[in-house]
Amino acid sequence: TNRHQDTEPERENVLSGFKTSAVLSDSAREKTIFIHGKVWSAEDAVVILEKTPIRQDSLAELLSGSTLQLEMRNDIYSTYRLQAPPHLNEIKTTVVCPATEKHVKKYQRQESFLVEETGDDYQSITLPYIQKQSFSVQWVYNILEKKAEAERVVYEDPDPKVGFVLLPDFKWDQKQVDDLYLIAIVHQRNIKSLRDLTSEHLPLLQNIFQKGKEQILQRYKLPSSKLRVYLHYQPSYYHLHVHFTKLGYEAPGCGVERAHLLADVIQNLQSDPRYYETRTLYFPLRADDGLLSKFKEDLEL
Amino acid sequence: TNRHQDTEPERENVLSGFKTSAVLSDSAREKTIFIHGKVWSAEDAVVILEKTPIRQDSLAELLSGSTLQLEMRNDIYSTYRLQAPPHLNEIKTTVVCPATEKHVKKYQRQESFLVEETGDDYQSITLPYIQKQSFSVQWVYNILEKKAEAERVVYEDPDPKVGFVLLPDFKWDQKQVDDLYLIAIVHQRNIKSLRDLTSEHLPLLQNIFQKGKEQILQRYKLPSSKLRVYLHYQPSYYHLHVHFTKLGYEAPGCGVERAHLLADVIQNLQSDPRYYETRTLYFPLRADDGLLSKFKEDLEL
Repeated sequence: TNRHQDTEPERENVLSGFKTSAVLSDSAREKTIFIHGKVWSAEDAVVILEKTPIRQDSLAELLSGSTLQLEMRNDIYSTYRLQAPPHLNEIKTTVVCPATEKHVKKYQRQESFLVEETGDDYQSITLPYIQKQSFSVQWVYNILEKKAEAERVVYEDPDPKVGFVLLPDFKWDQKQVDDLYLIAIVHQRNIKSLRDLTSEHLPLLQNIFQKGKEQILQRYKLPSSKLRVYLHYQPSYYHLHVHFTKLGYEAPGCGVERAHLLADVIQNLQSDPRYYETRTLYFPLRADDGLLSKFKEDLEL
Repeated sequence: TNRHQDTEPERENVLSGFKTSAVLSDSAREKTIFIHGKVWSAEDAVVILEKTPIRQDSLAELLSGSTLQLEMRNDIYSTYRLQAPPHLNEIKTTVVCPATEKHVKKYQRQESFLVEETGDDYQSITLPYIQKQSFSVQWVYNILEKKAEAERVVYEDPDPKVGFVLLPDFKWDQKQVDDLYLIAIVHQRNIKSLRDLTSEHLPLLQNIFQKGKEQILQRYKLPSSKLRVYLHYQPSYYHLHVHFTKLGYEAPGCGVERAHLLADVIQNLQSDPRYYETRTLYFPLRADDGLLSKFKEDLEL
């Protein structure tokens, strides 16, 4: 009714008549949930709930004013379920209303699946897929040729065989080194990914490792013991590049299921020149990734 | 008083007399806080509070049963502070009591440094350090012998050679599978870590991989393509165990600098029985870790 739409008390209960149509995404780690549904049985809305951080200034009140239920005890460890007074334990709520299809998609999480790719699978499934898609890496060539982003380049070794360009990743605003994120892009144009690496690429990899660390020490005062240096597999573009991120900064894609430490790659190639050609590799693919469909077709996953 | 110490109601208020001496660390992203203080004005304790993930199955009740206070409105966007019924918005509470200096240090936020450990470094630096510290794993033996947490065990293969116990990690409240986290602890007591693994352990590793995945599929309906199965190096305790976490859940310690996929470990041992004995391994150590000092002394880092 109109009355409902004009008064504050109604607004305080805007979600009481909310009908959920789908959970778009959620994070158990961050205690968030993104929901799509309808308010007042009519208007589409996206609702975002996020538990609030635990505040130091209300800690004493929280501990004394709550009730505890014992769940488990073992030796010196015990766990409880704590029920707190509501005003000390709020949930931040954001409502987007009316929400369009674009809003809904923006907040929709795509599930990921771990794919197992043998050396043969790469040849018969992944490589043909990459070639058929012919993903453009023109933007990479623009960087290498100084046709774009020239002013962002931090360092260049121009050698055509072992050279590379070092520049900040887009995700890093360069305002602080806490989330330092740089990318080294190789000048050689025929190396698509980790899968193509053999012992003949050791000089290239060692050069990137060595000079990349030197440059970051000089420019950002971070020694190599503060760096995580790795490749992605699958990469997001098929022109060889190496990620340099600050240790302690949980950069997206630094998980063991996708990242390969450059130091390990070098060691593995030193002991087996064909390590990455023959090895079974594991990586996550999003539900909407065309390559995942190819694996499902071919392997009847 | 004795009455207090013997009855459950007392335990429900174990934190009501808690005096905070320091906040060891906190995370606004994860909604956690780690506190050092005293219970009953005497015993040292570490208390860990973590807000619980927002559960899909109680979403309707949460939205209809809460009160909302408008904070901001702009065009289609508005934000509110939501106050929920306490039983729908619990805080997971872990108490370590009595806590030693080591526990306090463990939870104190610390910078990390990446350490490079050759096979020789392990023999001359790390192994003597582990042996000298003789970290207690009594709590692990309690689990294996069913003296504690018996009701938490999800599955057991009792075989002394290849058997293991599978149970939820402390970090997981088991309310939703989004942040599924289980640990497989091996029955064999002589395997300290990844470094001790050789090809003779392949039947053990394959058994854990196979049966762990089967059990998780049966019990939690998660297929292996949704799992990240890995070991830590360095581990947090020196009795071999394997982590099973849900793919997509960024579990602490799943970064490439510390985690080793079990599938990779198996492959590496199959092609080189002494892979983990001889390989240079990289791992982060916190600034206050005694092992880091040892590395600095020996290598003049």
